[in-house]
Amino acid sequence: MQKVNINQKLSQFAEYWSPRVVGELNGQHVKLAKLKGEFTWHQHDDQDEMFLVIRGALTLRFRDRDVRLNEGEFLVIPRGVEHLPLAQDEVHVMLFEPAGTLNTGNVRNEFTLDDLEHA
Amino acid sequence: MQKVNINQKLSQFAEYWSPRVVGELNGQHVKLAKLKGEFTWHQHDDQDEMFLVIRGALTLRFRDRDVRLNEGEFLVIPRGVEHLPLAQDEVHVMLFEPAGTLNTGNVRNEFTLDDLEHA
Repeated sequence: MQKVNINQKLSQFAEYWSPRVVGELNGQHVKLAKLKGEFTWHQHDDQDEMFLVIRGALTLRFRDRDVRLNEGEFLVIPRGVEHLPLAQDEVHVMLFEPAGTLNTGNVRNEFTLDDLEHA
Repeated sequence: MQKVNINQKLSQFAEYWSPRVVGELNGQHVKLAKLKGEFTWHQHDDQDEMFLVIRGALTLRFRDRDVRLNEGEFLVIPRGVEHLPLAQDEVHVMLFEPAGTLNTGNVRNEFTLDDLEHA
């Protein structure tokens, strides 16, 4: 049982779109990620996903609208809802989702990461 | 699908030791709480619990040691581990735990809340 300092963990990596697992509970993973630019349209068929903005601003694009999250705001994206994360400038986020969730969901492309690092 | 602003939610209530449910995903609840003073020794036999400090400082007391969490730090308490949250000054926390988790775990006393409000 070890406490985690979010900013200290974030200082340990620089890569974008490469979430680090920083906690696990009840079969869920807590992840930290740095995002910049545009990700890929995808959905998670069986997993709800939570984005919490730690620093910066994130746009979550949906087929019918955009949701902009600022620091201290979060959104839960229900399973099956197609989305595209978009960050004009670097943004730091905490993710909360079931262990084993693939970052690109139903899509496989250059963003896909099969194994996540534990920071 | 509605974004949540953590500080805005926290501004809507003042009671200590009365977590508000502000999100739900994959059978888990996201809660916000204001804590001050000493809670009660308890454990959750079947649920891991995460404490993330949003503002202030929280001491999590265990039978063999204390862990102090400052702003931006979190700790996952595994199921079955007895603990006592303690806040010298008011602290704001985000909690992650399975829906239905009783705040006082295996104990029933004046702190026990059977029904949590959704903020």
